[in-house]
Amino acid sequence: MTDLFWPGDQRAGDLFSDEALLAAMVAVEQLWLDALVGTGIAPASAAASDLRGLVSPGHTEWLANESESGGNPAMALVSLLRDGLREGHPEAARWLHRGLTSQDVVDTALMVCAGEAVARIRLALREQVRLLAGLAETHRATPMVARTLTQHAVPTTFGLKVAGWLTGVLDAYDEVAALVLPVQVGGAAGTLAATVELAAHLPDPVRTATGLALELATGLGLTPSTPWHTSRSTITRLGDASVRCTDAWGRIANDVLTLSRPEIGELAEGTGGGSSTMPHKANPVLSTLVRRAALTTPQLGATLHLAAAESADDRSAGPWHAEWATLRTLLRRTVVAGEQTTELVGALRVHGDRMAETLAAAAEDARAEQRSMADLAGTPGGGAYLGATEALLEAPLARAEGVLADGVPALRRPHLEETP
Amino acid sequence: MTDLFWPGDQRAGDLFSDEALLAAMVAVEQLWLDALVGTGIAPASAAASDLRGLVSPGHTEWLANESESGGNPAMALVSLLRDGLREGHPEAARWLHRGLTSQDVVDTALMVCAGEAVARIRLALREQVRLLAGLAETHRATPMVARTLTQHAVPTTFGLKVAGWLTGVLDAYDEVAALVLPVQVGGAAGTLAATVELAAHLPDPVRTATGLALELATGLGLTPSTPWHTSRSTITRLGDASVRCTDAWGRIANDVLTLSRPEIGELAEGTGGGSSTMPHKANPVLSTLVRRAALTTPQLGATLHLAAAESADDRSAGPWHAEWATLRTLLRRTVVAGEQTTELVGALRVHGDRMAETLAAAAEDARAEQRSMADLAGTPGGGAYLGATEALLEAPLARAEGVLADGVPALRRPHLEETP
Amino acid sequence: MTDLFWPGDQRAGDLFSDEALLAAMVAVEQLWLDALVGTGIAPASAAASDLRGLVSPGHTEWLANESESGGNPAMALVSLLRDGLREGHPEAARWLHRGLTSQDVVDTALMVCAGEAVARIRLALREQVRLLAGLAETHRATPMVARTLTQHAVPTTFGLKVAGWLTGVLDAYDEVAALVLPVQVGGAAGTLAATVELAAHLPDPVRTATGLALELATGLGLTPSTPWHTSRSTITRLGDASVRCTDAWGRIANDVLTLSRPEIGELAEGTGGGSSTMPHKANPVLSTLVRRAALTTPQLGATLHLAAAESADDRSAGPWHAEWATLRTLLRRTVVAGEQTTELVGALRVHGDRMAETLAAAAEDARAEQRSMADLAGTPGGGAYLGATEALLEAPLARAEGVLADGVPALRRPHLEETP
Amino acid sequence: MTDLFWPGDQRAGDLFSDEALLAAMVAVEQLWLDALVGTGIAPASAAASDLRGLVSPGHTEWLANESESGGNPAMALVSLLRDGLREGHPEAARWLHRGLTSQDVVDTALMVCAGEAVARIRLALREQVRLLAGLAETHRATPMVARTLTQHAVPTTFGLKVAGWLTGVLDAYDEVAALVLPVQVGGAAGTLAATVELAAHLPDPVRTATGLALELATGLGLTPSTPWHTSRSTITRLGDASVRCTDAWGRIANDVLTLSRPEIGELAEGTGGGSSTMPHKANPVLSTLVRRAALTTPQLGATLHLAAAESADDRSAGPWHAEWATLRTLLRRTVVAGEQTTELVGALRVHGDRMAETLAAAAEDARAEQRSMADLAGTPGGGAYLGATEALLEAPLARAEGVLADGVPALRRPHLEETP
Repeated sequence: MTDLFWPGDQRAGDLFSDEALLAAMVAVEQLWLDALVGTGIAPASAAASDLRGLVSPGHTEWLANESESGGNPAMALVSLLRDGLREGHPEAARWLHRGLTSQDVVDTALMVCAGEAVARIRLALREQVRLLAGLAETHRATPMVARTLTQHAVPTTFGLKVAGWLTGVLDAYDEVAALVLPVQVGGAAGTLAATVELAAHLPDPVRTATGLALELATGLGLTPSTPWHTSRSTITRLGDASVRCTDAWGRIANDVLTLSRPEIGELAEGTGGGSSTMPHKANPVLSTLVRRAALTTPQLGATLHLAAAESADDRSAGPWHAEWATLRTLLRRTVVAGEQTTELVGALRVHGDRMAETLAAAAEDARAEQRSMADLAGTPGGGAYLGATEALLEAPLARAEGVLADGVPALRRPHLEETP
Repeated sequence: MTDLFWPGDQRAGDLFSDEALLAAMVAVEQLWLDALVGTGIAPASAAASDLRGLVSPGHTEWLANESESGGNPAMALVSLLRDGLREGHPEAARWLHRGLTSQDVVDTALMVCAGEAVARIRLALREQVRLLAGLAETHRATPMVARTLTQHAVPTTFGLKVAGWLTGVLDAYDEVAALVLPVQVGGAAGTLAATVELAAHLPDPVRTATGLALELATGLGLTPSTPWHTSRSTITRLGDASVRCTDAWGRIANDVLTLSRPEIGELAEGTGGGSSTMPHKANPVLSTLVRRAALTTPQLGATLHLAAAESADDRSAGPWHAEWATLRTLLRRTVVAGEQTTELVGALRVHGDRMAETLAAAAEDARAEQRSMADLAGTPGGGAYLGATEALLEAPLARAEGVLADGVPALRRPHLEETP
Repeated sequence: MTDLFWPGDQRAGDLFSDEALLAAMVAVEQLWLDALVGTGIAPASAAASDLRGLVSPGHTEWLANESESGGNPAMALVSLLRDGLREGHPEAARWLHRGLTSQDVVDTALMVCAGEAVARIRLALREQVRLLAGLAETHRATPMVARTLTQHAVPTTFGLKVAGWLTGVLDAYDEVAALVLPVQVGGAAGTLAATVELAAHLPDPVRTATGLALELATGLGLTPSTPWHTSRSTITRLGDASVRCTDAWGRIANDVLTLSRPEIGELAEGTGGGSSTMPHKANPVLSTLVRRAALTTPQLGATLHLAAAESADDRSAGPWHAEWATLRTLLRRTVVAGEQTTELVGALRVHGDRMAETLAAAAEDARAEQRSMADLAGTPGGGAYLGATEALLEAPLARAEGVLADGVPALRRPHLEETP
Repeated sequence: MTDLFWPGDQRAGDLFSDEALLAAMVAVEQLWLDALVGTGIAPASAAASDLRGLVSPGHTEWLANESESGGNPAMALVSLLRDGLREGHPEAARWLHRGLTSQDVVDTALMVCAGEAVARIRLALREQVRLLAGLAETHRATPMVARTLTQHAVPTTFGLKVAGWLTGVLDAYDEVAALVLPVQVGGAAGTLAATVELAAHLPDPVRTATGLALELATGLGLTPSTPWHTSRSTITRLGDASVRCTDAWGRIANDVLTLSRPEIGELAEGTGGGSSTMPHKANPVLSTLVRRAALTTPQLGATLHLAAAESADDRSAGPWHAEWATLRTLLRRTVVAGEQTTELVGALRVHGDRMAETLAAAAEDARAEQRSMADLAGTPGGGAYLGATEALLEAPLARAEGVLADGVPALRRPHLEETP
């Protein structure tokens, strides 16, 4: 998957592609049918093990077209699968999807897609934590002038600046690591009524029905949950966590954009982009593209919140539908910006000499506060005026160690291929 | 082009597809090269008439991948075209793109894509004006209860309600009809320096350079303009006009969603969508999908404004890049919602009988104000209490007539196919 | 009115203050009562000429508290006024507000407040047009290096950069100058039914009712209009125009923030702000505060669009209520940022020497494109490479002249004091 | 504090009022001065115990005006306090604020104000948890028709609907309860250099400096932290948690608005608001005002994210300044909407009879799915078709119990009055 309007989009591969969503929806239907048969709700004759085989890539476009009349892609998929089953597996055709509603299929499939995106974002954050912690260590004593409201302030170190970047990334990591991706199984209106009815001949129909939801969650690597058709915190949390990531990355990108201006020259991207007309230029392209993402994601996050707030009834008319593409775009952009940031940070060139020169040139001003303080305290005041720069590294570096001690999250790929 | 995450997306066809952008960029390079040769800036040997032939659909994905290193799709395209020309048209390879910068190519191509979208949106608005004016006429005396803050208020007519919808659509039409789509030609930093340098051997190099920009505009059906690399009102106006459209349509959709609730039943969509599990249901799918769009576009419009406001320098690092996909998504969604609204309005079923029943049932309350007024004025107060409902139709109906008297805007298609 | 959380807020004076809204609401009630009596709908005994005298500043807080139970401030005001009239003007107490609904009073009062804000914004834009046109003229030949994607590009002039700022301001001016501020008179559900009922004893009750709305518009300096209770383009246009202003100003502020960095030093604010701890610092405070506004207004504009899109019924439950404070904040911030921008531009210090030095130091790079072009064209290529910088000034300067030839808009103050 | 543009605003009392911010800033300066003296950094003669006495309410407006030239309110406050101290406590005047930067004072004061708002929001959520859990219990067997995409679906219970509301509130509670409010102490550029310099005569100047920050945190009831001048997760988390609250409340409000339509009549607000012209109306005013808030907060939250993402340097020029008023408005609106929701839920009238009637009337449709399922399963299918409605209550009710077992959070009031 590529996007000429969003250079770098290919880094997100087929995350949330139409094919990935379709595959995830088929996996949901497959596991549900398996479970209906497995628990004895449906007869053994309703089994059908290869729904995947009924869907080809060519169906994606057809399904997208068909989705409009039902308002979502699940209904057309169910028709397609039933048509495919009717001949060879007439009982499977009858039992397919029974107990589910289209929102169950779409929401659960979205969570499957989100799971992989979240795993990749978490890995990127973890790698950034490693790189930034290293950079902060390396430059814990590299002095530079601090800049506040664009003007030279007192001395600082590049290590401390990096520690600030690291803190943002750690905050994002904590939030991403805490995300929960629940299964959605509620039936037509979140009551599981159809499944309970279908299980009427079994000892405990209600427990059977809730057990089925649990089974689906397990099969897909999702978290069990009561239905959340119109309680959308799951979606807004995914959104907020993604935006918190791009906040952290955007702030890094903005610093690189500033500090790599030719007049400043304290940082440079590993390899800059060229120009279509000016041969000498080395543009800070990664920073530019990361900042680009950070300018767009807060509004996408806001859209998810609005959809949550304007939810109504037992399944909503519009707000729910606004979420899918918004979540897709938000998570793909986050994955892309995450990998770009890792690359940016990993290859960043730090010009300690330019930092030292600027600081020396700015000494008169940068030390003015020091002189005031020395006057006040009656001390000579001749040091580097680096304050607690080293001590302030400790807390973020300790947090970084904690993150790096976490196991690497397994990259979930509960795609069609895995369906038994 | 279809989108499983945005049912109905296929209505926008290939507007702003990767292929459409590529075709438009090639058209820009072709017309510019033609003009360089035509004005005598470049030698006749630099002519090459079939750049289109150098690009195949298979290149789109390659270009999208390549675009990341330069930060935008124009640079990679220029490489591709030069590579294709080098053998047979070495002079054309040397002269291609000279005088332009990548932003010239991308912005102008975006305007070409926008031109077609705007034409389609305008046609949809015009058709809605026709339909709504007809509906208002038909129902100018169809009484119903007005609802304010969700509760029954005084009587009104369905015609007047429709006139309110019409006013929103007319306001959007005015704004869309006033949109201007300028060409972008400024060279590396908006000074046209390269073109002026290349024209140094001609009598008036500056006038020659600005004349070239004019020629490009004419060739593409765009408006001549000074460079607008970091003055982005063009983009925000496109955004605001699109959002104003979805505002108008969202308000219609919200009314249909309310009035087609089974307890109210005064309106119904022509054909509702079905349910994946409940055989009887006829969901108001078009209204749902239109409302969906209206919940997302204001935030996309805000992103365009932020990009404008955070612009800096002579070409910006990030804000510009944030615009392309945002504008694409915003305009496609507007085209889709526009056609859905036309269909919704065109097939709307109006249940005047239910309106009359509700009004009768609510008479006690709906006439309470009338009784107060009659008391105050000392009049008998027995009429239908429809006030100025008919008179208030006149202004919007007159505006509608004005719009319908406008010529139908030609659907611009300055796509590759047209390049001679 | 001041705001410790928004330094500079006092520049907006009492625009949209609680007192200003109250005064405007009282003016609406006064003019409406006058008109009821004047047209003979109400008896002469219903006249009361000094509603203003019934409201003291101390009532504002009381009214704000009372407004919650009715959901808007008009209902409590009507009670207050009726109580005040009951004793001395019992007939006026009975006739007051008859024919209006609370939304009529609030919307019309908001338009009155907006009128003054718009006039001030327009004056600020006009003054900026004057200042920027002058600056562009003065520096039409002041060379500097252009910067694209933060890096040095080809030469440009400061005059041309200013012309880009000017274009943004002119675009905003056009939109602000075209704003229309309509009166809102519809009665309970936009049908004017109550007024028509009250005028039943007059020859043409409908015409009398619509004439009353016209009279109110004239009295308040607003534009006549059919009711727009749920067609909210008026509000979104005000919002979009305001955001377009802060877009233009934010872009100027961003350039000043960059170019006044100590390493660049090509621009400086007239007087910078100090620091609470560093004696030497001169912070670019005006640019900072203007950029602050530009980061917040697009989202406020989006809220107004959402309110428009989610409108439903004949008066909406929530969307309308979300507009008032949003519009207030948006317009006050625009007025404040406008005056700050005028001050910023008026006192801007331009360091042509630093511009020249930077350009000279960057010559090798900045002229690389020129060399390529000269090679290609076979010309010597030794000029200043300023391209069409002078010619490109003409169009914006001509537009500026057009604006300055406009009459200065009268500052509308249809406040209580003016009510006869 | 009241706001005529935001009815109900008075519920937030003086939270984040100008006076509250001023009081909190004075408390910061007082505790810092105390700590400077207490640790022996400053001489005993620098002590001054009553900074509060130097500031009167009348100063607020003066300070707001003065704040513009420095860009923030802390600088003017320091001047004011120094002027007040100069005469009687000349040493205190010299030592006041030493080691701090204005951002330390403003950010810490904002956290003090936020602490109180967060405590109130948490209390409101807790009370709602209690009320909603009770309502869910009471109505665990109250049948009603579920509505999906506005149309009648299968039966559900009002208890389960309430459980959905409760889940949203519980999710918000979890996030609010986890909020951390850190102190901000970094000095001019986040290095603590001034404090370290001032402590040069003490054994461990760095530890002394960081200890001082700890002391300030303790004194104000905030969490110790390294400086976070440009790592703004604290602010965005506050924002996101607030928006998650209004999401949950907006969804409740939307359900009440729908279900209290006269044609549906299944719910009603305890006491509705009246109408300025229609005597019979009982508008759902609380729901309207809560929904109003929920339509505006997502965009305010987005602004906080943008400010975080566009941060740069060691203290930023504009993004930081955009946060204060945004956070103030967001938190006040959340407090107001929270109390309105508590009131709404506490007094909600549930018309079980209307629910039963609607369900009976809709039986044909509402039971269609049941018949399909019974056919499929070969069962008689005659039950109430309420599925797992009761079982699905258990998880949210258990979560509710957990929340109610939490201690009631102490309402922090670290206002000036508490400063010893």
